Amino acid sequence: MSATSRKIAFIGLGIMGGPMAANLVRAGHTVTGHNRSRAATDTLVAAGGRGADSIAEAVSDAEVVITMVPADQQVKEVVLGEGGVLEHAAPGTLLIDMSSITPQTSLEVAAAARDKGLRTLDAPVSGGEAGAIEGVLSIMVGGDPDDFADAGPVFEALGTTIVHVGPHGAGQTVKAANQLMVAIHLQALAEAVVFLENAGVDLEAALEVLGGGLAGSTVLARKRDAVLSRDFKPGFRIDLHHKDMGIVTDAARAVSAPLPVGAVVAQLVASARACGDGGLDHSALLRGVERLAGRDPR
Amino acid sequence: MSATSRKIAFIGLGIMGGPMAANLVRAGHTVTGHNRSRAATDTLVAAGGRGADSIAEAVSDAEVVITMVPADQQVKEVVLGEGGVLEHAAPGTLLIDMSSITPQTSLEVAAAARDKGLRTLDAPVSGGEAGAIEGVLSIMVGGDPDDFADAGPVFEALGTTIVHVGPHGAGQTVKAANQLMVAIHLQALAEAVVFLENAGVDLEAALEVLGGGLAGSTVLARKRDAVLSRDFKPGFRIDLHHKDMGIVTDAARAVSAPLPVGAVVAQLVASARACGDGGLDHSALLRGVERLAGRDPR
Amino acid sequence: MSATSRKIAFIGLGIMGGPMAANLVRAGHTVTGHNRSRAATDTLVAAGGRGADSIAEAVSDAEVVITMVPADQQVKEVVLGEGGVLEHAAPGTLLIDMSSITPQTSLEVAAAARDKGLRTLDAPVSGGEAGAIEGVLSIMVGGDPDDFADAGPVFEALGTTIVHVGPHGAGQTVKAANQLMVAIHLQALAEAVVFLENAGVDLEAALEVLGGGLAGSTVLARKRDAVLSRDFKPGFRIDLHHKDMGIVTDAARAVSAPLPVGAVVAQLVASARACGDGGLDHSALLRGVERLAGRDPR
Amino acid sequence: MSATSRKIAFIGLGIMGGPMAANLVRAGHTVTGHNRSRAATDTLVAAGGRGADSIAEAVSDAEVVITMVPADQQVKEVVLGEGGVLEHAAPGTLLIDMSSITPQTSLEVAAAARDKGLRTLDAPVSGGEAGAIEGVLSIMVGGDPDDFADAGPVFEALGTTIVHVGPHGAGQTVKAANQLMVAIHLQALAEAVVFLENAGVDLEAALEVLGGGLAGSTVLARKRDAVLSRDFKPGFRIDLHHKDMGIVTDAARAVSAPLPVGAVVAQLVASARACGDGGLDHSALLRGVERLAGRDPR
Repeated sequence: MSATSRKIAFIGLGIMGGPMAANLVRAGHTVTGHNRSRAATDTLVAAGGRGADSIAEAVSDAEVVITMVPADQQVKEVVLGEGGVLEHAAPGTLLIDMSSITPQTSLEVAAAARDKGLRTLDAPVSGGEAGAIEGVLSIMVGGDPDDFADAGPVFEALGTTIVHVGPHGAGQTVKAANQLMVAIHLQALAEAVVFLENAGVDLEAALEVLGGGLAGSTVLARKRDAVLSRDFKPGFRIDLHHKDMGIVTDAARAVSAPLPVGAVVAQLVASARACGDGGLDHSALLRGVERLAGRDPR
Repeated sequence: MSATSRKIAFIGLGIMGGPMAANLVRAGHTVTGHNRSRAATDTLVAAGGRGADSIAEAVSDAEVVITMVPADQQVKEVVLGEGGVLEHAAPGTLLIDMSSITPQTSLEVAAAARDKGLRTLDAPVSGGEAGAIEGVLSIMVGGDPDDFADAGPVFEALGTTIVHVGPHGAGQTVKAANQLMVAIHLQALAEAVVFLENAGVDLEAALEVLGGGLAGSTVLARKRDAVLSRDFKPGFRIDLHHKDMGIVTDAARAVSAPLPVGAVVAQLVASARACGDGGLDHSALLRGVERLAGRDPR
Repeated sequence: MSATSRKIAFIGLGIMGGPMAANLVRAGHTVTGHNRSRAATDTLVAAGGRGADSIAEAVSDAEVVITMVPADQQVKEVVLGEGGVLEHAAPGTLLIDMSSITPQTSLEVAAAARDKGLRTLDAPVSGGEAGAIEGVLSIMVGGDPDDFADAGPVFEALGTTIVHVGPHGAGQTVKAANQLMVAIHLQALAEAVVFLENAGVDLEAALEVLGGGLAGSTVLARKRDAVLSRDFKPGFRIDLHHKDMGIVTDAARAVSAPLPVGAVVAQLVASARACGDGGLDHSALLRGVERLAGRDPR
Repeated sequence: MSATSRKIAFIGLGIMGGPMAANLVRAGHTVTGHNRSRAATDTLVAAGGRGADSIAEAVSDAEVVITMVPADQQVKEVVLGEGGVLEHAAPGTLLIDMSSITPQTSLEVAAAARDKGLRTLDAPVSGGEAGAIEGVLSIMVGGDPDDFADAGPVFEALGTTIVHVGPHGAGQTVKAANQLMVAIHLQALAEAVVFLENAGVDLEAALEVLGGGLAGSTVLARKRDAVLSRDFKPGFRIDLHHKDMGIVTDAARAVSAPLPVGAVVAQLVASARACGDGGLDHSALLRGVERLAGRDPR
């Protein structure tokens, strides 16, 4: 086993966590997985990992514990709850939470872990399922620089852009800012598209020239086809972006940062969900602008 | 003279028009320039062009007339006014207005020109002074496809992304959409930056990871240094973007396209101007968010 | 004829102008009416007024000329246009424009009239058709205080709240502010109603307590029944409020007054129109919030 | 003691609770007060009430327990916490929470109380300190109709508008809607005022005519003087309205009710606080619009 190989407990083997754990195995780490439903654990075992039936079993022997679960509540349960990570992990263990949650909860986890002698990093990712599978995620990390350095071999198995952005919670803050910007860019695109179409412009040609100039964005490049075809198969679901807009709205409020435009977009994301579009890709914000324009988006 | 060489009258030799006319000379066209102040005309003559003291003189012999002036009013004066292009240009002449104006005025100009037997294209550009000098502008063109094809050798001397986007006025519509998206992207960046700073994140690191993911944008790439240094030397002035937000707001209203976010951003651009930032680069929208956050942006 | 009786030319005998002219007759003034369609003029004659077939005929002998037409364009035509008021009214005549138009046009009219030796007041009204019939309009007047005093006997026949609010254009500015506030209040009510209903509250009881406290408004008092019954028979049509939101948005922009909320409401009024609600009462802004909430407002 | 006299425990004798408890004494109820700091309890004793040093002592003998504390957290502590109301009140006791909190917490309290055999009403008020002293509060009540009827003699000593608006939580929902509408009306007034002033209108005259027409509101009537004098002594502090905007934003999100305008206003309230205006009356939202207009509001 190489000098950079780690004994890793990986909790939460879902759409993102599953392929991430497999990539860690592939990179030479010893990975023990745990998931609420056993099937996902079996998949990891088939890929060369180990399986554990409880958090206690998974973390007892680990140098690094990674959690990758849906939201604040699950992080609290898995880490702080009865039978959770803090009860069973050894002092000195490095806990890396890669879930997307509020900075506030990350700070609570960090404080509780410190009381038990554990080290923590918050390390949410962007790049989606494809990025998880291919190991090309962007990872934004908050916490102690030494712990960040220590986690290097782990992160390198998972992503390509790996940046330490500040103290505990800072990773989540940057992830929140990411989701804020993405939502606003999607809404900008949606307003432009309805305007262009209503004005009788050739949309495909227009998007080409817009994308090539100062109006260009990664959202425009990646969502262009969805916009042209109105095929809003996810991708990243509006329901999830709605959760994230709640995180960024609360986090910005907590630090007295005004979001005059972000707050409007948060309402439009919520509206999309209320209109039944929660299961569509977030580029379906376009449908909301169409509704406001009196069109039937179906 | 090559088969693609044209006799061009170029009216409006300002910051954009001056280098554009020079590029046309360089490409082998015969260019006669006219400008309200004679100095700009002399510069063109020094570059190998010809000078004219009146619109009448400039256009009398031209196959193509290009206008590049600040706003709707100047286009109306220069094209429709007494002593203007329509009075003096020969039937069949191709009039290309490259100013950024309302689609409505472009349609009026197209109709008036057609009555006189002239052909027109609206062909606003993006890329700024640097793009004009280097001949790498994006050009979004509205009008008849045959006229677009005919203008090919002219446009190729000026830009690299040259797209026909629809009928008369469509070029201006796309330019308006461009300015809409740019303003919203700038505001998204501004809200993210103040949020990140208030939360104690390392801004430079955060912008690196944001730029590499789905939140990336040309605005973020090009304005990153301005944001980090708070050096808002233009670039593209807020005063001009304020004019453009008026154009897109009116144009969207005219075609019943809703701009729930664009309208808020238009107010914030207007506010920036009211706060004395009109002469700064449009990335100084950041200063408005700072003021809302209770900071003194100076 | 009493000392306060005036020879009045009344141009524009529509839904508002017709009953206003009749009230002037009733108050003892000599009223000569003119309207594009003759039927409205005949109605005035039947009520004791006189009829004129042209503006020239109506104003030739008048001390006071009142104009009450739909929008800026008609004011310009009727006052400034060929065969219009300024061509035919005698120097010293007092021109009172009671239409709701932009302050800018009022200023243009005032300047043109002054050049001809005429005096002007801008005096838009609120109170609707019922207020016009009953002579209980609110009248907001811009112009010279002496001219305002001189017009007293005229205004007293038309309204009950008659206020001089500043120089030329100020009447229109206040009318614009009125329409701004009314639209925002209607939207506030709409958002509250959908929130209350979605939360399972007894709406009628809730509106009672809201109306009795600091949340009370004339909009809530007058539109309560429309909201409870969803009967949106106008009243004041969304199409007209859309026109007015255009006026106030432009006027605020002209004086660098930010409308962060007003601009959003203007977009929602435009959206209501785009969704086919233009002919409904403006309280039907509620339907737009219902749509955003995923309900079918029909 | 009359048939309608009740044994009441009153917890939270602050700016609102103190005078409310005194009014209950005055109406013939037997009132035992408890407050964290003893001084407030002494004031109640001087007014003819009784004092208790603990919640346990206050509620042990009570038929009705009223809580009037600052926010969700205090309600949870006082009612659900160790040594709190639910531990010590007898089954059958009616718990009336008159604090302004989230509907969600009201529902949690109602459920926990039911488990202990207690009945609950949520009954937040509006009317401020003056309304509390004069006994003219508006009271919006959620809960069982029988409990509402039972509480009649209590409410009648405190307020004049007393309305049952729905099931548990509905009182808080209506209070939230009240604060939403008030904030939007204040912002509407602020935008109108800056527009009118920038346009050179006589503000006092303009507010007179606006208040008399469809733009009228209780906010305009009560805050007119503050606006004219720029004297923003509270009244109701922006800090508290900021708390309330958080409540309504969260509550609306929970029931999928869109607040496109309310969300913008919430940001502007937060901005006012960030700019140091948290201790001023909420009519000081005007200062935020002045800042956006480039004026120095000081």
